[in-house]
Amino acid sequence: MQEQIETAAKLIEDALAERFGEALPVDPGLPGLAELARIAGHRVHRRFQPRAVEPALVRLICACALSAPSKSDLQQADIVVIRDKAKQRSIAAMIPDMPWIAQAPVLLVFLADGSRLPQVARLREKPFPNDHLDLFFNAVVDGAIVLATFMRAAAAVGLGCCPISAIRDRPAAVGELLALPARVIPVAGLVVGWPAEPGHVTPRLGLATTLHEDRYEAGKLAQQIDAYDRRRAARRPYARQRDPGRWGMAQFYGWSEDKARQYAEPLRADFGAFVRAKGFRLE
Amino acid sequence: MQEQIETAAKLIEDALAERFGEALPVDPGLPGLAELARIAGHRVHRRFQPRAVEPALVRLICACALSAPSKSDLQQADIVVIRDKAKQRSIAAMIPDMPWIAQAPVLLVFLADGSRLPQVARLREKPFPNDHLDLFFNAVVDGAIVLATFMRAAAAVGLGCCPISAIRDRPAAVGELLALPARVIPVAGLVVGWPAEPGHVTPRLGLATTLHEDRYEAGKLAQQIDAYDRRRAARRPYARQRDPGRWGMAQFYGWSEDKARQYAEPLRADFGAFVRAKGFRLE
Repeated sequence: MQEQIETAAKLIEDALAERFGEALPVDPGLPGLAELARIAGHRVHRRFQPRAVEPALVRLICACALSAPSKSDLQQADIVVIRDKAKQRSIAAMIPDMPWIAQAPVLLVFLADGSRLPQVARLREKPFPNDHLDLFFNAVVDGAIVLATFMRAAAAVGLGCCPISAIRDRPAAVGELLALPARVIPVAGLVVGWPAEPGHVTPRLGLATTLHEDRYEAGKLAQQIDAYDRRRAARRPYARQRDPGRWGMAQFYGWSEDKARQYAEPLRADFGAFVRAKGFRLE
Repeated sequence: MQEQIETAAKLIEDALAERFGEALPVDPGLPGLAELARIAGHRVHRRFQPRAVEPALVRLICACALSAPSKSDLQQADIVVIRDKAKQRSIAAMIPDMPWIAQAPVLLVFLADGSRLPQVARLREKPFPNDHLDLFFNAVVDGAIVLATFMRAAAAVGLGCCPISAIRDRPAAVGELLALPARVIPVAGLVVGWPAEPGHVTPRLGLATTLHEDRYEAGKLAQQIDAYDRRRAARRPYARQRDPGRWGMAQFYGWSEDKARQYAEPLRADFGAFVRAKGFRLE
């Protein structure tokens, strides 16, 4: 038991050193170290064993996820479990560069549900003077919190996941396939299964960039990003460069070059129109 | 050990039965049951022991939270730890009906950071044709995922939390206090400490309402909400009715009546203007 605890503390220290490039000491006397190790050692999984995930287990984890905190107890998140394999293939066909969507044992879609609260107001015969950005924002945040909590519960039992925000590349088609009513939109999909590979820890921007004290410290972003690009490339270089036809082959290809190239293409420019067509007002 | 596992399985079953009003059997052979029990048994904590939370522990949990998945690896979430007690009191003073904000050992603010990605594009001399709703959406979702992951890591070590979305009631004042630059907005605050009370499981809408198979099933919402109101009132009735001066005293006061009354008042109507003033384009 003592040995397990020391191992968990070391796993956390190693994962965070790999992640942030800095030593964060872990008190081996802390409770919950196995869970912290899973959180600190988060890794994405896109390849799965050919082994089913029991529907009852999916339902249990969904219930755990829906136990997450909800803004003002408004409960504006929903989950759709895709059981129909033809429907799963239809969604996968919309995103041809992600074959893991069709291959995954389980596909879920997490929703932001702004439809119930106005209905509750009507049922209770009350006015609803809050049809503006806040309604949308709260529902989206609830959906994201349920997604994150699902991923923690899944990791606890040994399942691996990969979020699929690309389902918002084709929001209207996904909305139609899932029969989403007015004021209900997808936040992200999620593939789930028993991991076929151990996965790896992805280095992140240093804590000097993302963790602030008392006030936002913009810092020396260019230098921080350059340091991150180099730290990351030393551990996990990109296997290939994005769109060399347009941008050429960079001598040094880091995170910032990859993200800048990715977002140099118009992406989801129609998402706002979709959200408005679904009846959300963003004023 | 065997006994602990059986206890964890039963804790999960009891929490989910209390939460959703339905039996979800838990296989005692599943790994990670202690963690599932914490997730399923989620409870909010607003009262804390007069015991400090070590800054190194807060930093460790922030690092765990920032290890959460991020949309396209864009890393658009930040955390501000409020160490300055005067600043904490200033924020608390903006939200006078939540005394726990001033009293909590730790106050954090989780941010959606849409500022870095356009800067990365400039640094790498690339166009950025994605200044629309998707940028805002992705940053908000990242912020919410980091918030949810923080809460799981905090619960693992025994800390309790309560999210404070009400900091968005005064977004401009909070933004100024935290020196938030353009395209950075608060998602929620969070108070953290060692719980003074065990807390309780809050019943939620039944899974027939929020968990769907293959397509969104709007179902019989009025009946489902009525059933939820009654199930919840039997376990955790509201201690007082909201604004009886305006609405009178209801003979039966359930969740739907409480939420309808809460959102019958204009709330955060200026949030959209704040977000736009911060430079986000929501087209």
